Amino acid sequence: MTKFRVCLFGAGEMATTHAINLRADPRMVLAYVVDPSAERAGALAAATGARMVDPDTAFADPDIAAYIIASPPRTHADYLERAARSSAHVFCEKPIDHDIGRARACLAAMKGREAFVQMGFNRRFDPQFIALKQAIAAGRIGTPEQVLIVSRDAEAPPVEGFVHSSGLIKETAVHDFDLIRWLLEDEVAEVYVMADALINPDYLSVGQIDTTTTSIRMARGTHVTVLNSLRAAFGYDQRLEVLGTLGQAAVGNMVGSQLVLATTQGVLGEKPYQSYFQRYAKAYRSEMQDFATAVATGGRVTPDAIDGLRASEVAEAALLSMAEKRPVAL
Amino acid sequence: MTKFRVCLFGAGEMATTHAINLRADPRMVLAYVVDPSAERAGALAAATGARMVDPDTAFADPDIAAYIIASPPRTHADYLERAARSSAHVFCEKPIDHDIGRARACLAAMKGREAFVQMGFNRRFDPQFIALKQAIAAGRIGTPEQVLIVSRDAEAPPVEGFVHSSGLIKETAVHDFDLIRWLLEDEVAEVYVMADALINPDYLSVGQIDTTTTSIRMARGTHVTVLNSLRAAFGYDQRLEVLGTLGQAAVGNMVGSQLVLATTQGVLGEKPYQSYFQRYAKAYRSEMQDFATAVATGGRVTPDAIDGLRASEVAEAALLSMAEKRPVAL
Amino acid sequence: MTKFRVCLFGAGEMATTHAINLRADPRMVLAYVVDPSAERAGALAAATGARMVDPDTAFADPDIAAYIIASPPRTHADYLERAARSSAHVFCEKPIDHDIGRARACLAAMKGREAFVQMGFNRRFDPQFIALKQAIAAGRIGTPEQVLIVSRDAEAPPVEGFVHSSGLIKETAVHDFDLIRWLLEDEVAEVYVMADALINPDYLSVGQIDTTTTSIRMARGTHVTVLNSLRAAFGYDQRLEVLGTLGQAAVGNMVGSQLVLATTQGVLGEKPYQSYFQRYAKAYRSEMQDFATAVATGGRVTPDAIDGLRASEVAEAALLSMAEKRPVAL
Amino acid sequence: MTKFRVCLFGAGEMATTHAINLRADPRMVLAYVVDPSAERAGALAAATGARMVDPDTAFADPDIAAYIIASPPRTHADYLERAARSSAHVFCEKPIDHDIGRARACLAAMKGREAFVQMGFNRRFDPQFIALKQAIAAGRIGTPEQVLIVSRDAEAPPVEGFVHSSGLIKETAVHDFDLIRWLLEDEVAEVYVMADALINPDYLSVGQIDTTTTSIRMARGTHVTVLNSLRAAFGYDQRLEVLGTLGQAAVGNMVGSQLVLATTQGVLGEKPYQSYFQRYAKAYRSEMQDFATAVATGGRVTPDAIDGLRASEVAEAALLSMAEKRPVAL
Repeated sequence: MTKFRVCLFGAGEMATTHAINLRADPRMVLAYVVDPSAERAGALAAATGARMVDPDTAFADPDIAAYIIASPPRTHADYLERAARSSAHVFCEKPIDHDIGRARACLAAMKGREAFVQMGFNRRFDPQFIALKQAIAAGRIGTPEQVLIVSRDAEAPPVEGFVHSSGLIKETAVHDFDLIRWLLEDEVAEVYVMADALINPDYLSVGQIDTTTTSIRMARGTHVTVLNSLRAAFGYDQRLEVLGTLGQAAVGNMVGSQLVLATTQGVLGEKPYQSYFQRYAKAYRSEMQDFATAVATGGRVTPDAIDGLRASEVAEAALLSMAEKRPVAL
Repeated sequence: MTKFRVCLFGAGEMATTHAINLRADPRMVLAYVVDPSAERAGALAAATGARMVDPDTAFADPDIAAYIIASPPRTHADYLERAARSSAHVFCEKPIDHDIGRARACLAAMKGREAFVQMGFNRRFDPQFIALKQAIAAGRIGTPEQVLIVSRDAEAPPVEGFVHSSGLIKETAVHDFDLIRWLLEDEVAEVYVMADALINPDYLSVGQIDTTTTSIRMARGTHVTVLNSLRAAFGYDQRLEVLGTLGQAAVGNMVGSQLVLATTQGVLGEKPYQSYFQRYAKAYRSEMQDFATAVATGGRVTPDAIDGLRASEVAEAALLSMAEKRPVAL
Repeated sequence: MTKFRVCLFGAGEMATTHAINLRADPRMVLAYVVDPSAERAGALAAATGARMVDPDTAFADPDIAAYIIASPPRTHADYLERAARSSAHVFCEKPIDHDIGRARACLAAMKGREAFVQMGFNRRFDPQFIALKQAIAAGRIGTPEQVLIVSRDAEAPPVEGFVHSSGLIKETAVHDFDLIRWLLEDEVAEVYVMADALINPDYLSVGQIDTTTTSIRMARGTHVTVLNSLRAAFGYDQRLEVLGTLGQAAVGNMVGSQLVLATTQGVLGEKPYQSYFQRYAKAYRSEMQDFATAVATGGRVTPDAIDGLRASEVAEAALLSMAEKRPVAL
Repeated sequence: MTKFRVCLFGAGEMATTHAINLRADPRMVLAYVVDPSAERAGALAAATGARMVDPDTAFADPDIAAYIIASPPRTHADYLERAARSSAHVFCEKPIDHDIGRARACLAAMKGREAFVQMGFNRRFDPQFIALKQAIAAGRIGTPEQVLIVSRDAEAPPVEGFVHSSGLIKETAVHDFDLIRWLLEDEVAEVYVMADALINPDYLSVGQIDTTTTSIRMARGTHVTVLNSLRAAFGYDQRLEVLGTLGQAAVGNMVGSQLVLATTQGVLGEKPYQSYFQRYAKAYRSEMQDFATAVATGGRVTPDAIDGLRASEVAEAALLSMAEKRPVAL
């Protein structure tokens, strides 16, 4: 069996997750790990049987079948453009680039290539959301009219840990913007964002907010509400519900244990999962399997680079709405 | 509008509930309250506009259309036999008499009367259980095969408060025996009881037990399990589920408030109702309304005196099973 | 016992509900029913033992202790102003008047009166929402940050039946605006509404919309989302959840039967209540009892006329937001 | 790293599951597959990189560190006794032998060995049941008083497919007998079984029944009810609840998808898992990991051979109770 050689950029949590999931596919072999921290890169390389190399070595190797870009956002565009000069496929965590102009330039540079780019919007691979999308496709709830997405982290970071973040819109809400495009097979037409630092007003001092309530009108008219927050004290709060002409389809939070305790205090169930690595474990596995299959078979997958650009454009409009306190059309 | 005059025996909690529910029916008027405690009878009579009288006065009045017997069990047979000499209808809390022979004699005394006797098996009037019975009748779960009844009090009484009780089988399980006859429209063929004093071993010193696990085989073969206990710390635990050839129908505990709190401790719902007066409030109203309608219209209602006798016979067999530690056939 | 004589304006569904609930209070007697339809007024009067009279007779009677205004919205201001000249208390369905100027004039006319005005915002009396408010007051979820209200009718009316309606904002959302003021004990600072006719585009031809997604920022910063729709095919959809610094409190839909059927099709529970008369039955009883108690004891109740005005002001801002497609500050 | 070489007896569904889970442990290598069907053994060996051998070859190899016995029940005792002559560890599916005498002889043959035997009672490794046991150990519900186990297959086999089965007691209920010993850390004192062929009376013609209701009294007095059936039309029905002095702990059925559809039909959730391979996937993985760890580290694990014998003894008593229609003491 031919094994496809893969190079991984990044050695943090996300990169490690992708490395583990990639290794579960017998067709793939992780050849290189690239990360500026020799300590991190070395550890991940050792654990996976890969070699730690520098970017130049990685891009000079003509036998790399696929690049996985799970390094910090600011490095994505560079790596994408260098990968564009090879014939390798690319898996890239969002965003292409936080600067929309640069992101568009990246897409231009990849124009006409045979190889594909898959963006890391993991929610599209979640079995729960897939079941919901299938229920809509099967006509179970008719035409969607009003959608609610709740997407909240379990624990807010300290101010100093958030200073270099892309922020709640570009880091979190952008996932929901892609989710809604995929779920409804429709484009965002208009977005209005109400944003505040309610959890910790000190976030404002580093240009961040922690709570957003976003209203979206889709091109076909469907209303979408996205509730984002840096903290839901009870756990990672990920819910989706769609009201249609014939009824409602909903996916609630996932819980690891089903144990229910009934005492004088009440009836107590367990908290939902506390992190995206738990909640979306199956989605991460599935998106990497789909990537591997596409690499191995030459298939095509979504979300692609255009999807990456579209989600970023919605995020950009959302930030403009925040700044100008008005709905922004796309 | 002719008003039907009713006489109530008893002035305790159960009698008071019946009085309140009876007064909600504009066709009925509570004429008399009979109770050896002048204080209790007087208070209830005053609150309801009735007169406190002695039994002789009550039975001497030819204009009483109905007697409601909600006095202690040992008085039922006497009152039933005296009522049998009138043309009035009777509502009687279970049992007819704890002595089966005496109960049968009561039935014999009532033979041939035009007026009817309705026994106070309130569970037959519970909207939840009625919905379950209707689902079975509609064929939603096919033929019943295995039934589970959970029926537990919220709080166990002190030993001294339980010494004069009819005991867990005759006080509580007998309701479940009637429930299952009504639900399955079938007779109990065999009963096996495992009984212990697990909550408080001191109950044994007054001839009582607090925990029973009862296995019943119905005449048509259906298996029934009844779990009774004097205490479920979280509340009055009343559940019913029926496995049939096509699926299962179940009714869980009822909760007054739907408030759900999600915190770092978990996801907390409210406790179920704590007493039968809360849990079966609608059932008590409904059984009294049905009684009033039957009195006013000359209709017929179940459960009748035969049902009362049958449930007592199952209870008798259950006690024999406990004593002889073997299944007992009916 | 002195009985307080009450006059009821209106003989429709809402008025009938109030009449029934009022009659359950032994301190109150329904003296008059006033309605332009002699047929409706006569029927309600007959059923309740009241007299059908014209408004002049009603207002000329100095022994009326309270007026209940449950007639169409356009009549409220007139009745309120005439009632203001008496010393009677008033219960008034919302709105005071759809014209804010006229509503303010009404309040001015009532200035300095001893008697009180209670507005018919029934949600404040719902035991579920009261439990949620108490949980917040008890500190169970910390400081509220992000609130979600779902409030949808079960069935959308035909276009011709909606032509004279006050519309989704003034008819339905205004309840949610009052609810949020009461729940958070805070004022609405800013409102943005996205509104469309998604269920039936023909509503637009009579100036109506059927689906609104409303974003509110409260004075203390809390975010509120209100999802309104004329139709949730599965039933009257009334939910409320509040994310706070320490967790979340939520109240879901109420269901009449707890029956759960598990079959090859899945696990099926019953639909929620289908109408506000079912869902808010206890709230309607409770608001009328509180009114009666306040009349009888001279107490004071909320929501009062100022609350009525405030909710209307938010509705007005919501309509302006719809018209000008921008957030509107209050 | 030293790899431990393992020999697997059996090549059916259960054996294949163990092979897959074993291979996930980098310390283990599957050396041999033994099965009378060369086709099945060859396929499994090929898929796992093992060699297909006969029993003599397998037992003659002194470098086998562990035997896994997942062949039909009638072969267990032979393989166990032959394994007993080696120094290898053994994992053995239940039962040791359906004949209690033979099972005891097996245990005698293993007496004094250093190596251990782990029995395949997978429910002890289920995270849900472990969480429940930990809740009891932590004192969350006080002392257990009344336990309910529901354990039903999703689909009943045809009569001809059940003729050679060990039957509902020895095949299914025996798992529950072990579960309750482990959960309560107590021994079964008395068992009473009510058994019938309600699903298909033709089972009786091959000496089988399909529905059992079992009442157990533990040595410390706790009541246990076990409801077994060959068919729950909605899915593999596996529930456990324990009432204790302070409350109740319960684990319900597990569902793969959380999708909930609310329509005019009601509120519909998905069916539970349909098979034990789905429901207990994690338990199977965990029991094999624990076995591998014990092999690699020389640790000790439960359930051991004594546990296997005890569960069989309860099953034997259950069958006697069925035959003689009376409770049987152990």
